[in-house]
Amino acid sequence: MNAPGPAFPATQPDQVFDWLDAEATKRTEAGLTRRLRPRGPVSDELDLAGNDYLGLARDKRVAGAAAAASLRWGAGSTGSRLVTGSTELHAELEHELARFCGTQAALVFSSGFTANLGAVTALSGAESAIVTDKYIHASLIEGCRLGRADVAAVAHGDPAAIAHALATRRKRRAIVVTDSVFSVDGDLAPLRELSEACRAHGAALLVDDAHGFGVLGAGGRGAVHEAGLSGEPDVVTTITLSKALGAQGGAVLGPRRVIKHLVDTARSFIFDTGLAPGSAAAALAALGVLKEEPDLPGKVLTAAQGLANGLREAGFRVSTPYGAVVSVQAPSADAAVSWAAACAEHGIRVGCFRPPSVPDGVSRLRLTAHAALAESDVERAVKVITEVAPRGARG
Amino acid sequence: MNAPGPAFPATQPDQVFDWLDAEATKRTEAGLTRRLRPRGPVSDELDLAGNDYLGLARDKRVAGAAAAASLRWGAGSTGSRLVTGSTELHAELEHELARFCGTQAALVFSSGFTANLGAVTALSGAESAIVTDKYIHASLIEGCRLGRADVAAVAHGDPAAIAHALATRRKRRAIVVTDSVFSVDGDLAPLRELSEACRAHGAALLVDDAHGFGVLGAGGRGAVHEAGLSGEPDVVTTITLSKALGAQGGAVLGPRRVIKHLVDTARSFIFDTGLAPGSAAAALAALGVLKEEPDLPGKVLTAAQGLANGLREAGFRVSTPYGAVVSVQAPSADAAVSWAAACAEHGIRVGCFRPPSVPDGVSRLRLTAHAALAESDVERAVKVITEVAPRGARG
Ligand SMILES: Cc1ncc(COP(=O)(O)O)c(C=O)c1O
Ligand SMILES: Cc1ncc(COP(=O)(O)O)c(C=O)c1O
Repeated sequence: MNAPGPAFPATQPDQVFDWLDAEATKRTEAGLTRRLRPRGPVSDELDLAGNDYLGLARDKRVAGAAAAASLRWGAGSTGSRLVTGSTELHAELEHELARFCGTQAALVFSSGFTANLGAVTALSGAESAIVTDKYIHASLIEGCRLGRADVAAVAHGDPAAIAHALATRRKRRAIVVTDSVFSVDGDLAPLRELSEACRAHGAALLVDDAHGFGVLGAGGRGAVHEAGLSGEPDVVTTITLSKALGAQGGAVLGPRRVIKHLVDTARSFIFDTGLAPGSAAAALAALGVLKEEPDLPGKVLTAAQGLANGLREAGFRVSTPYGAVVSVQAPSADAAVSWAAACAEHGIRVGCFRPPSVPDGVSRLRLTAHAALAESDVERAVKVITEVAPRGARG
Repeated sequence: MNAPGPAFPATQPDQVFDWLDAEATKRTEAGLTRRLRPRGPVSDELDLAGNDYLGLARDKRVAGAAAAASLRWGAGSTGSRLVTGSTELHAELEHELARFCGTQAALVFSSGFTANLGAVTALSGAESAIVTDKYIHASLIEGCRLGRADVAAVAHGDPAAIAHALATRRKRRAIVVTDSVFSVDGDLAPLRELSEACRAHGAALLVDDAHGFGVLGAGGRGAVHEAGLSGEPDVVTTITLSKALGAQGGAVLGPRRVIKHLVDTARSFIFDTGLAPGSAAAALAALGVLKEEPDLPGKVLTAAQGLANGLREAGFRVSTPYGAVVSVQAPSADAAVSWAAACAEHGIRVGCFRPPSVPDGVSRLRLTAHAALAESDVERAVKVITEVAPRGARG
């Protein structure tokens, strides 16, 4: 059989990706080019950019557990969790996470990203409706896109809109998907109202507690626990091991039958190598620290509120933090980049979020508070951020 | 505003997930239930199930590097690669991977799964056509599903079908997506023919070399290198750090402008915490071992061919291995499970692949060869697998 002639003419091999240059030019014009800036092992910058909220990534107990487990178990898990990639470390971590949060079971993934993909896809499907807040994290959005469910993304922070979408859905089976603490502005989803809406309409609730776990709730049990929803039969929580726990990986927590279902059907679980033993051990050790030091999470909130108050008093447009995250609006993408760079020159490392990382298109400085921030650190940060602020940042 | 009445009546919270039980029952009836079997740190089973092809996960140089890096850099990378999650370790690993394979650049992801999602989505889009072999890995399939490209999945191992789909596409921009060594049967994609088809039709070629890298090609440089395509301006390769390198993580290798484009646009890169320093260091150390011991990969192939020949002579339906993977067809999903269990009772750990992990629906034992397998190990494995084979496995 002869293939038909080409629909489009052959190009030179080195022209195939020419379109990427055109896209790059557009991004440069819009101030949306990124550059990786590899960092060293230690820094004397004040870190207001990382998500190591409790300072556990470099804690000797946590880093030491990672090191010991790498030596004892090997550097990798060697296979899918369904084949050789489940070690006793993974099982223990799952047991302890579930016990800590008061859920029947937990399942560890290689990242929070793949945990979200797995939870959303396995708990929806062609016969389901998904209703989401439109500002949910990218990994949840990808989960929604992957399946064949009807998806309705409604206004941010509006439980009545969620209820309305549930009421007008066409599929019987439904799940509401939300972040607890939203990753850009650090605002909190109205979890109890969302749960009520779910119950009134026979829907399940899936909450991504990536920024709540380890920071909110009794002893850092998270926003879902704080809302009294942990362990409920119609609620599923995802968390990441890479923020407050200072490690890598993610987990889904919920009813036993949900976890069982994920083991059997979640493609990002089945077709992915299990989390490295060192990361599992680090998360387990971090959980141990959290249990021993239940006051640690509160320090994060104090620091975040100090930052937000100081910057608001200085006249910036600042979000109201419910967890570690505080954002400050910038007048443009370019201004955000140079603002962050100027902070770095003065020894303060802050995050800079631009499209596509900001759902409303408004570029921001994104600050994260840490348990170890002293009051003087907060004051210095506010001072520097204020001094180097671009024109138009106040108002 | 009052929300309209519920489209579907409220259910009791504990009934919301009742549908999962119905699905579980269906899976049980079809022999498709999975159970996690956490393993200990050491085992005296003969491992023919894991993907640690070169035995590097537990190699002192590799595990030691993971341990040292966890202590020096911390247990986690603390943020997105775009914020605080890029360390000098990541940069060095990227540099060394690119140099080893002869590409302009490389980008490290937290897993092979997210590397595939990122590469497929960022290099396609609504104005693109994607043409794939229908047996590609689940993570590539998810990448295809995520975007808004036209997707055509054609017959397995059929470059003429790929060419035909390219010729009849409706979008000018096009990319062909394939595994190099297919993960279920270990067969090899006709990479040179695929590249010719791409060039005849102005398309790019994206190859997932997860099972080829570290096993095939000069000194383990992979199947793309072996096909003479590494470093070509129209070819992009993804690899995983979790198989031959014994660690965790994934990477995309290719032209500099492709890597730059991924940094700016790949959602599974931007919205994911960077790979843990310990895993990056382990992969880097494993790459060092590979450079020092260029004969290691050949041992994997010898062992794989020994397994395949022995089992074929015993009368089983055995795949022809081009890398480490050898598969043996089983008469049913249940038979595959009990066959694998019987092997385990006799000290041989083999993988068992059932739907949805087998694209043709045929359940299999899946064996993986390792560099350290002695001839006597191969003989023992063939003997045991033969002795405990279920009725109907031969033929
Ligand atoms: C809200 C939220 N969910 C999920 C993730 C993904 O988790 P991970 O980085 O562990 O993959 C992140 C951040 O990375 C996040 O901010
Ligand atoms: C062909 C192929 N691609 C990609 C992956 C995903 O890589 P990782 O497990 O590192 O996420 C795997 C296996 O897990 C695979 O077999």
